[in-house]
Amino acid sequence: MLPPIVLLKLENDPDLWAFLKSMALVAATSAGLLTWTWHTPVELKTQHMFILTTSSWVVISAFASLPLVLGAPQLSFTDAVFESISAITTTGSTVLSGIEHLSDGLKLWRGLMQWLGGIGIIVMAIAILPFLKVGGMRLFQTESSDWSDKVLPRAGGIAKASAVIYLGLTLVAILSYRLAGMQTLDAIVHAMSSVSTGGFANYDASFGIYENRPLILWLGCAFMLAGALPFVLYIRLIRDSRGALWQDQQVRGLLMLLVVVIGTLTLYRVVAFHDAPFSALTAVAFNVISVVTTTGYASQDYSLWGPLAVTTFFFITFVGGCSGSTSGGMKIFRFQIGGLMLLNQLRYLVHPSGVFAQRYNGRPLNDEVVRAVIAFSFFFFLIFAVLSLALAALGLDMVTATTGAATALANVGPGLGPIIGPAGNFASLPEAAKWILCVGMLMGRLEILTVLVLLMPFFWRK
Amino acid sequence: MLPPIVLLKLENDPDLWAFLKSMALVAATSAGLLTWTWHTPVELKTQHMFILTTSSWVVISAFASLPLVLGAPQLSFTDAVFESISAITTTGSTVLSGIEHLSDGLKLWRGLMQWLGGIGIIVMAIAILPFLKVGGMRLFQTESSDWSDKVLPRAGGIAKASAVIYLGLTLVAILSYRLAGMQTLDAIVHAMSSVSTGGFANYDASFGIYENRPLILWLGCAFMLAGALPFVLYIRLIRDSRGALWQDQQVRGLLMLLVVVIGTLTLYRVVAFHDAPFSALTAVAFNVISVVTTTGYASQDYSLWGPLAVTTFFFITFVGGCSGSTSGGMKIFRFQIGGLMLLNQLRYLVHPSGVFAQRYNGRPLNDEVVRAVIAFSFFFFLIFAVLSLALAALGLDMVTATTGAATALANVGPGLGPIIGPAGNFASLPEAAKWILCVGMLMGRLEILTVLVLLMPFFWRK
Repeated sequence: MLPPIVLLKLENDPDLWAFLKSMALVAATSAGLLTWTWHTPVELKTQHMFILTTSSWVVISAFASLPLVLGAPQLSFTDAVFESISAITTTGSTVLSGIEHLSDGLKLWRGLMQWLGGIGIIVMAIAILPFLKVGGMRLFQTESSDWSDKVLPRAGGIAKASAVIYLGLTLVAILSYRLAGMQTLDAIVHAMSSVSTGGFANYDASFGIYENRPLILWLGCAFMLAGALPFVLYIRLIRDSRGALWQDQQVRGLLMLLVVVIGTLTLYRVVAFHDAPFSALTAVAFNVISVVTTTGYASQDYSLWGPLAVTTFFFITFVGGCSGSTSGGMKIFRFQIGGLMLLNQLRYLVHPSGVFAQRYNGRPLNDEVVRAVIAFSFFFFLIFAVLSLALAALGLDMVTATTGAATALANVGPGLGPIIGPAGNFASLPEAAKWILCVGMLMGRLEILTVLVLLMPFFWRK
Repeated sequence: MLPPIVLLKLENDPDLWAFLKSMALVAATSAGLLTWTWHTPVELKTQHMFILTTSSWVVISAFASLPLVLGAPQLSFTDAVFESISAITTTGSTVLSGIEHLSDGLKLWRGLMQWLGGIGIIVMAIAILPFLKVGGMRLFQTESSDWSDKVLPRAGGIAKASAVIYLGLTLVAILSYRLAGMQTLDAIVHAMSSVSTGGFANYDASFGIYENRPLILWLGCAFMLAGALPFVLYIRLIRDSRGALWQDQQVRGLLMLLVVVIGTLTLYRVVAFHDAPFSALTAVAFNVISVVTTTGYASQDYSLWGPLAVTTFFFITFVGGCSGSTSGGMKIFRFQIGGLMLLNQLRYLVHPSGVFAQRYNGRPLNDEVVRAVIAFSFFFFLIFAVLSLALAALGLDMVTATTGAATALANVGPGLGPIIGPAGNFASLPEAAKWILCVGMLMGRLEILTVLVLLMPFFWRK
């Protein structure tokens, strides 16, 4: 909370007190917990890791929400927690309106929460999730097959290098946005929410205020995309300076998907609605990349772009970026592994006695990873259905309920329909709906099974 | 075509000529094909079975559509083929309006098409699909593990017994409907479209004309449900007179799902909308059973029942009845096997070195079946997304496009929204959309992979 405190002090803004009080509360609680547990010997088991992973995201979000309750927006507890969970999970759904009138400190805080959530998830994907065997992320475990003393420092080194690259990318983004014409604070906040694929903007209209500044929109595309690529690849690129990003099957998959979707929708806009080709391409590219990378900025209300566009946006909400990046969603590699499995199944129908090797990124796929990937996908749709029905039970119409559940679970940001669509806002939803969406955002961010396993009775058995 | 011809002759209706011409065309084509191929020796390979399965449903639908083109409704080729594919796949979506004014012969024909489609799919599920190893249906293969001379007559016997039971159920339904107050022709046609879980009715308002006849609605529930249970179980029940239906895991799953969904929505209607409990229960039970069994009758426009009901109807469109019945959808056993896999995955996260046996219906599940079930589910959602996007590209709004794709693929009948909802009709859709839905209905009916494999280049390689 130091950066907003410094900024607010410089600007003599009354929100300063909200942050000072929040910081005092956090410090007091932490000190209390530390003295209470300092001398307890720690022996971490798998179960503890699961509990720690989920609870740390909840606790951090709760503390991060304090300045929103104590500061000028004076949000209710529900709204503040919704906003901070949305921030830290890099979802980017907001309950605030009149964002442009918030104090600079709060704007900076919203950006910082997303930025910290972004690096948090990268580190988790490198150092913790593969160890927990959740959702097939083991596929990306660095060489060694088990969590040994050798791997721990190695994973630590990779996490540190990723953080440095993350910081570097953010600085480049700040500079680029600033040079392209954004005001300094906007450049900083938007850089943080681009690289973290978070999607908070300093304006109610999101990137709509840059609708006629194609340079800014294309820079946005570049930085959202940079945040959605696997950070280990950047390290390999810098360290070995061999192997382009393009050689990675997941990156290729993401880029090909983007080319197909952006190409199709641009053509659709130009042919069916007579848009000018370049402005159509810019708008389509920006908003499609925003949703696929799970950032959630909008430069236009794409829910008015015609049925093909709306239905496409519904489906691409689920996709997500690459594993080991800041983006959410189901992730490209799961679709690719699912596709491999489907192709093998069709081959098997024709040649029942044939044996078909499965390879991904040049390496053989083991059954354990395939099973985990498939289970993840099933869980994703199951939780999607459960959340949708829960939201509908609270009175939300079908489009709001289903797209709300999807956008929360995939950590995208906006849904569809008049309420939570790209031009809308989550403020008017019932309290209970906001809590359901909070659960969805956390589950989506923590790859679902990490949270779900806590609900199983056998998890708590000795 | 003989039954409608006899009926039309008795009633002296001009549609008689449409059927006579159609019959002559069918007879001439068949005779020509027979004389051409009579002396060609036949050696059926797996590939041939795939080609025959798909092409026979297409050819039968094409011929069945003739009376609709030549008779009084004078449908276009597209509309007629849509109506007959919808009939024979037991989907029940219709392009006709003023159905009550059709000749009795055409009403009977619509019922007959559904009835024949119903028994067709039961026989296929018993005798062909397990052999083709499609979608995990092998699970239900009768004992022996391969397609040998021993199994063929056995499967033939089961198919014959199923047909007798199907006929018996239909006769009971006709009698019951008649005694409950339906007119004779209505009783016959509705019995045929209930037991086949087809859903064609003799009235534009579907079962809405019986809205205030609870006895008829509850009879409808019973016969739709009877059509959605595995027919092999009836045989076992009769032959061994041991083992209630309830002992079958799939039947239990279906009934439990229905109890939960019907209970929840009845409560919702009573609490939130102050409906009278019994009439709410009747209406909810009838329409939920209609959708879950993939029949597709409607006794009310349930799209006006509030957001929870609408969203529930959207999700239960995918479910379907039991395997080896007349109903479509993804089928209960696939959800159960998916659920087992998910539970095992969660167990595995907590006890990575544990071994968890998977059993279904008391027998161990082999990996081949689990893989096939999972691949089927992935394909179902993949094709659902592709069909939805294709329909949206033709200008259908998102709700019509997605629920249209779902209702076709699951062979249910009505979708949601003002156009194709339970009070609507498929007539006003663009031609291309009707063809897309035809593809969806056929793919859904033939368990998707049966059709999809034909599109693979390696299928056609030597």
